[in-house]
Amino acid sequence: MSKYKGRTRELLKSISAGVGDKIRVNKGDQTFEGLLMPRTERGVPDHIVLKLDSGYNIGIEVTENTEIEKLKEGKEPELGKKGQEIEPDPEKPDVTIIGTGGTVASRIDYRTGAVHPEFSASEIYSSAPEIAEIANINTITACNVLSENMTPKLWTEIANEVAEELNEGADGVVIAHGTDIMGYTASALSFILKNLTKPVVLVGSQRSSDRPSSDAALNLVGAISAATSDLAEVCVAMHGSIEDEFSLIHRGTKVRKCHTSRRDAFQSINIHPLGRASKSGVEFFQSRKRREEGEVEVEGGFEERVALAKISPNMQSDIIEGMLDKNYRGIVLEGTGLGHVPKSVYSGIENAIEQGIPVAMTSQCIWGRTNMRVYSTGRDLLDIGVFPLEDMLPETAYVKMMWVLDRTQDMEEVKHLMRKNLAGEISPRSEADIFLKPNLPEDKQ
Amino acid sequence: MSKYKGRTRELLKSISAGVGDKIRVNKGDQTFEGLLMPRTERGVPDHIVLKLDSGYNIGIEVTENTEIEKLKEGKEPELGKKGQEIEPDPEKPDVTIIGTGGTVASRIDYRTGAVHPEFSASEIYSSAPEIAEIANINTITACNVLSENMTPKLWTEIANEVAEELNEGADGVVIAHGTDIMGYTASALSFILKNLTKPVVLVGSQRSSDRPSSDAALNLVGAISAATSDLAEVCVAMHGSIEDEFSLIHRGTKVRKCHTSRRDAFQSINIHPLGRASKSGVEFFQSRKRREEGEVEVEGGFEERVALAKISPNMQSDIIEGMLDKNYRGIVLEGTGLGHVPKSVYSGIENAIEQGIPVAMTSQCIWGRTNMRVYSTGRDLLDIGVFPLEDMLPETAYVKMMWVLDRTQDMEEVKHLMRKNLAGEISPRSEADIFLKPNLPEDKQ
Repeated sequence: MSKYKGRTRELLKSISAGVGDKIRVNKGDQTFEGLLMPRTERGVPDHIVLKLDSGYNIGIEVTENTEIEKLKEGKEPELGKKGQEIEPDPEKPDVTIIGTGGTVASRIDYRTGAVHPEFSASEIYSSAPEIAEIANINTITACNVLSENMTPKLWTEIANEVAEELNEGADGVVIAHGTDIMGYTASALSFILKNLTKPVVLVGSQRSSDRPSSDAALNLVGAISAATSDLAEVCVAMHGSIEDEFSLIHRGTKVRKCHTSRRDAFQSINIHPLGRASKSGVEFFQSRKRREEGEVEVEGGFEERVALAKISPNMQSDIIEGMLDKNYRGIVLEGTGLGHVPKSVYSGIENAIEQGIPVAMTSQCIWGRTNMRVYSTGRDLLDIGVFPLEDMLPETAYVKMMWVLDRTQDMEEVKHLMRKNLAGEISPRSEADIFLKPNLPEDKQ
Repeated sequence: MSKYKGRTRELLKSISAGVGDKIRVNKGDQTFEGLLMPRTERGVPDHIVLKLDSGYNIGIEVTENTEIEKLKEGKEPELGKKGQEIEPDPEKPDVTIIGTGGTVASRIDYRTGAVHPEFSASEIYSSAPEIAEIANINTITACNVLSENMTPKLWTEIANEVAEELNEGADGVVIAHGTDIMGYTASALSFILKNLTKPVVLVGSQRSSDRPSSDAALNLVGAISAATSDLAEVCVAMHGSIEDEFSLIHRGTKVRKCHTSRRDAFQSINIHPLGRASKSGVEFFQSRKRREEGEVEVEGGFEERVALAKISPNMQSDIIEGMLDKNYRGIVLEGTGLGHVPKSVYSGIENAIEQGIPVAMTSQCIWGRTNMRVYSTGRDLLDIGVFPLEDMLPETAYVKMMWVLDRTQDMEEVKHLMRKNLAGEISPRSEADIFLKPNLPEDKQ
């Protein structure tokens, strides 16, 4: 009965339902059908956890009017025993899941690794048995921090683990990561991992794993699919819609968490997603780097004294001066529109550049491309020495400048590298059709 | 022939076409039909400017293979003579257009007022004759600055002009504003203008007016429509799609410029747009404050020492310390996810709060809502004294904190006012369907 307790346990017992059986749950107007899953360890009491046909695990509260019915005898997934060694299937690709601070699978935890810092392949199989059909899973832990406490040093450590796994024969790597700064880490790995010949897929969960409903398993299935595909880039694979049909695969330097809580929070900005993934495989939409032979190399190291400054009206130069006082070595501006700042920030920027601090321009619009030649004030900033970063995301620019400044401090070389497309962070041209659609009410669309 | 020169003038002369005539222009595979408009003053040479049925003015380059044909005799709009006094029509509502640094209409200039700081109602009618059918137009200039150089002092001055116009009988006000920081100004006016009983509509142009193709006229028509509607809020009315069908009306505190260059750059975040407007009128989707009787009041004044700090991984406390060193009096954080920051920023935040500086939390996701009770680190920040701002946009929070700190410095009172919905900046609950849709390639949707 896999950890079910109290009222729920009695109810399941009354129809002799066990984990793996297909059951139907009626609750007033609502009916759910799916495979009975083990109760999540820190689950809310009196919930039944079902795996729906979509692959999504939901928790249904058991109340007085809950009725259940056994539709089909199943069997508890063989692979679900904790600590059990699983024989690899030589026909299947090998994927390593690297933990960074969350437990994976039954809970790719949203951001904390505090409760379950360890995880095993068998635990993963038990909550997402589908992945056994896709790949042989190996698991390692690279670090154990909350997502927002990720650091440049850890980025290099994770990259080392990735390279080691891929060079020792893994066909792909999945990195379980908290969602808050997943985009920043994906960017960092995109710059560090050189001569990448296989897929590196970041995945997480938008729903805390201690709730019975979690997108963790479904996201993991998409990520494993992506990690066995012919992609040779760092990418993020997360829920593509709230309908649980597929994960979208986003290029690591072009992805952003755009919603605090929705499962489909991750979106490609300024390019189409690379493709979509589900348990039945991967479909690509975009040109991409393909899987090939060759050793992956790590070119780690970051100058940590880089600041990201969002421009606002009435912003004063002293914000920039404050950064200079504190010895920041590089500044990324999130300007307005095509790449503008108020006149009141000019002197701070001039001081920075006079001190040899590179100042780069991105746009807080997020979509579109900087263009500082359209208006005279843009040209003024170019004359001062600010350099625009085309359609690069501010977050990606921040990470890239840390990485570039660790390679060179020569201002011209920094500009050159920052403005050069190294890992898909700059699109050669902007596609006019790439933008969000206005959220009109459903009956007005 | 209204300023047409050279080859274009000859071509138009050959078919005796004058301004107001309906003509067809053939250029290889492409055909355009519309009313011949006067050449824009700073227009590129050898272009014909046509007003399409959609209301959008386009410029068509005249080359050797350009053929034109007169479809229907028209007449030059009577209202189009510069400097001519126009008799108000007592049947029509009165709308005042307030200039802030761009010329309006033939060019609601994107951001510069340098070339044409003056504008007259007749000039406006001449490039958008449709608006004469909607309202009697009066024009005044409140200030003359580039959009990004807008200041809190100017916000109060603009509000004073708005109140004066409305209290003296205007049925609505349209404010022509550069697009870069239009959202910030719309927020500011939303807080300053108290007991607003009529519509206040910000409008601009995403296309520089010195190009023959400009969205200025079409946007202005939508704005005038909105300004004669029964709305009694500050709003932004801008292109709703690239198809030129209508403008969307966005609540002033919930709107953001989301693209550097597209005409439909402005989007409502976390709520549906209030409605849509075209020359045929306004359709509302949302509950809203309605037009009523009563004097509009101005409650201006801003504490200018407020900083907006975007959180990034590896951000250090010294960024916040720098703000304290420079005597900032309030800080708005753009946190990650539900409202988090790295541990390395905690001490800076603690110092700020110990010094009596309010620190508020928004999310860089933009969509969704802060929730600092889900994870222990969010709760830690709450314990330190950071207060979350629900689904408020970071830009709106920045403006609001400036306004609130000018009213009170009492920390509890500041928190209370910041977390209270004053002008639609906080939605009581988040609608699950309000989010962008993934930009899949057209054949994959």
